[in-house]
Amino acid sequence: MDLKETQLSSEPIFQGTFVTIARDAVRLPNGNEGTRIVIRHPGAACVLAVTDKDEIVLVRQWRYACDQALLELPAGKLDVDGEDPAECALRELAEETHYNAERVKLLHTFYTAPGFCDELMYLYQAEGVKEGSILENDEDEFTETVLLTRDEVKAALKNNEIQDAKTLIGLQYWLLNS
Amino acid sequence: MDLKETQLSSEPIFQGTFVTIARDAVRLPNGNEGTRIVIRHPGAACVLAVTDKDEIVLVRQWRYACDQALLELPAGKLDVDGEDPAECALRELAEETHYNAERVKLLHTFYTAPGFCDELMYLYQAEGVKEGSILENDEDEFTETVLLTRDEVKAALKNNEIQDAKTLIGLQYWLLNS
Repeated sequence: MDLKETQLSSEPIFQGTFVTIARDAVRLPNGNEGTRIVIRHPGAACVLAVTDKDEIVLVRQWRYACDQALLELPAGKLDVDGEDPAECALRELAEETHYNAERVKLLHTFYTAPGFCDELMYLYQAEGVKEGSILENDEDEFTETVLLTRDEVKAALKNNEIQDAKTLIGLQYWLLNS
Repeated sequence: MDLKETQLSSEPIFQGTFVTIARDAVRLPNGNEGTRIVIRHPGAACVLAVTDKDEIVLVRQWRYACDQALLELPAGKLDVDGEDPAECALRELAEETHYNAERVKLLHTFYTAPGFCDELMYLYQAEGVKEGSILENDEDEFTETVLLTRDEVKAALKNNEIQDAKTLIGLQYWLLNS
């Protein structure tokens, strides 16, 4: 079966600094027409950083859309001018936490909400992780560094304390592969 | 540190059939004002269904926003009038695949893209999974059922063939817990 949906037209709804939103008319596989709301996003990077004591470096930050603080992997949007996601991951680790890394290795890429949004997330493993001073964060970002041991990660997963998709993927990856 | 961001005002940008988009002015933790784009979503449910041959039931479907077909757990949006997510999970399994289940058990809830969207995903384990005829699917949804063995799941994760966040979470959960 050919599953492809083809764009017939696109109506811009919103153009923001990092997301754009459009309503597209599409040709469906059965020949009919349908409508798709599409949110275009520049993509993002997140990083699994493990200290020399085998602790994971997480950040707690307020998520306005969810009306609560969440515990997450350090992460950030790619600059809209096509930032290298590896550079983004290294930068966000240094900006959001008391740790930095020498380099990162790509573990996985995935779409966070493919039903309506093209945000592609790059998940990296940090290498050469060292404690350092926190860099200047973005002026509208406020984060706390949180370290979790392996047993604390297992407990946090079991107790549903990790409520962010990319962070679940990174932590489960860590438990499965190291 | 108090991380909370408080709404000062909200400007509607778009009101669709399932998402609404607003631009909110917020009070940041340091007292300054900031802007947050917020996408409101009714939430969704997905289901980890394992056959009596220890195969995972997945669906392949076109994701227009990502311009490709993805391999995913059966899933769907909650009806906007407050559908029970467990009912949604059972319905989507029956509508999208050749399998159905007697009941589901909640494994986890998580936000798919908490930086800008309040979509909460309910991940269920199906119980009493049986093969059956495919139910009538939504008129604008086209899906293929795909079964993967445990070894095929491990290979698909390693080869980055699973590019959907909720599906990565469900498959990693399965490998870690059974």
